[in-house]
Amino acid sequence: MENYFTILIDFIGTFAFAVSGIRLASGKQIDWFGAYIIGLVTAIGGGTVRDLLLGIRPFWMLDSRYFLITALAFIAMLLLKDQLVKWWNTLFLFDAIGLGLVTIVGISKSIDAQLPFWVCIVMGTITGSVGGLLRDVLLNEVPLLLRKDIYALACVAGGLVYFTCQYFELSVPLTEMVAASVVITVRILAFRLHLHLPVLPSIQSQKEK
Amino acid sequence: MENYFTILIDFIGTFAFAVSGIRLASGKQIDWFGAYIIGLVTAIGGGTVRDLLLGIRPFWMLDSRYFLITALAFIAMLLLKDQLVKWWNTLFLFDAIGLGLVTIVGISKSIDAQLPFWVCIVMGTITGSVGGLLRDVLLNEVPLLLRKDIYALACVAGGLVYFTCQYFELSVPLTEMVAASVVITVRILAFRLHLHLPVLPSIQSQKEK
Amino acid sequence: MENYFTILIDFIGTFAFAVSGIRLASGKQIDWFGAYIIGLVTAIGGGTVRDLLLGIRPFWMLDSRYFLITALAFIAMLLLKDQLVKWWNTLFLFDAIGLGLVTIVGISKSIDAQLPFWVCIVMGTITGSVGGLLRDVLLNEVPLLLRKDIYALACVAGGLVYFTCQYFELSVPLTEMVAASVVITVRILAFRLHLHLPVLPSIQSQKEK
Repeated sequence: MENYFTILIDFIGTFAFAVSGIRLASGKQIDWFGAYIIGLVTAIGGGTVRDLLLGIRPFWMLDSRYFLITALAFIAMLLLKDQLVKWWNTLFLFDAIGLGLVTIVGISKSIDAQLPFWVCIVMGTITGSVGGLLRDVLLNEVPLLLRKDIYALACVAGGLVYFTCQYFELSVPLTEMVAASVVITVRILAFRLHLHLPVLPSIQSQKEK
Repeated sequence: MENYFTILIDFIGTFAFAVSGIRLASGKQIDWFGAYIIGLVTAIGGGTVRDLLLGIRPFWMLDSRYFLITALAFIAMLLLKDQLVKWWNTLFLFDAIGLGLVTIVGISKSIDAQLPFWVCIVMGTITGSVGGLLRDVLLNEVPLLLRKDIYALACVAGGLVYFTCQYFELSVPLTEMVAASVVITVRILAFRLHLHLPVLPSIQSQKEK
Repeated sequence: MENYFTILIDFIGTFAFAVSGIRLASGKQIDWFGAYIIGLVTAIGGGTVRDLLLGIRPFWMLDSRYFLITALAFIAMLLLKDQLVKWWNTLFLFDAIGLGLVTIVGISKSIDAQLPFWVCIVMGTITGSVGGLLRDVLLNEVPLLLRKDIYALACVAGGLVYFTCQYFELSVPLTEMVAASVVITVRILAFRLHLHLPVLPSIQSQKEK
């Protein structure tokens, strides 16, 4: 995964994640510094939790660019917000691409840690979705992820395809490309077609009602 | 603690914890996947935080059964909810038994890590109660644990009894059984007799009022 | 940093942090045990997250005094609340001093872990501010830190000064004293002069409005 193209995609994904955090923080009496923190947590929270669970040093300690890209995202939101509003669709695309990529990064790191395949899928999903979850917890809302977004499920689908490809002995680069495409496609289709899972109805005992 | 009986109790406890998470997630616009996640966090959150603090690999990475039992709990809640509603009392019993067991597991693991006795009690309490705390944070509520439930306190009581037994040189199995019984008894009595600690009254300066 | 004076300041800071947690928990239907937990999380949460990120054993596992000081803070709040209310200004001073000290502790520990300077500043800031953030999440509020308090920013300022002093080859004790003073001064000035950063205005697309 170490070439200029994937580094570029990783940074675009980080930018899109940070923008999603800053946007949701806007209009909620959050100050500039708080908005930057929310953007940062959205962008690096998933990978940080993954690295803590894997018992390795969080990735951002080795690379200041994640903090700089979040700062860029913050400045862009401040200066160009009217333009950015017009680019939501493009940003959403980057967000989906970023999701696909970080899921694969999470899976790869977990394979390196010699974890069983299902733990790798869990780790890929955590990498992709925990940042948004922490963002919503900090903003004092029930996480979107739990409510209606087909988001984490796209990561799970990509993870399953990853190991299916591996089972059929596809090369690693091809496996990664196919799996990332599945994450991106599921995410975009779910969003465009307003797909969502059923809501869990109330389960309470008589007395509690 | 490694025999068929304790494994069985562990799984029943996991099931009961997962059910408590899924039940509290119900009726709150949480979708199926979100409800599964809430059940999972309730069931494995405490042990995961304990393992992170101990600096060891989270227990569930080595055993897929926790994810499967949570899936079973989710399916059971979906299909059998009317029946389960009638079994709340039985489920509560399992929940209390599960609490007793995971507290002891937390203490044992911390003794293995050569921590002082009071850290072991803290770890046992974290194992038993942090899952429910994370569940409530995700559901955007002030954790039950902080409000009125005698829950964490039952773990603390069990922990104190554990090291009292150890001081009097009881055998490990007997110590574990006695301590787990104390957790379970305190939890059940507090629930049945509606015992609770006093609430902390408002402490504000004149100006702030 | 290991002498009687800094130990004393550390404990006074812990006490002030715990008091701030317990005070914010009061009047919110939190019971005694819950209030103690909130005080504890406020006092040791930042250092715990720092140590997890650094991959070392959380500091409080090696020193029971943090738990005891939090217990003292709880008892003091219960018995002496009317007097404490009159001492808010003094307590605020201790809180600011505590913030300065823990920020420097966080930076020192990160230098020991051979991290780049900017990660050390991040770690100092995490040490100083994550406890209050967790406190607010548990109390189900949008963290103060994100809304208006110049708090984390005081840590960042102190961190920048720390490495500026180091660049000019000041001795370690002098560097620590200057940096801690900056944190404390920024925190107190911001509080007294009601300084705050601008709030991020709403950034939404037309459709969403």
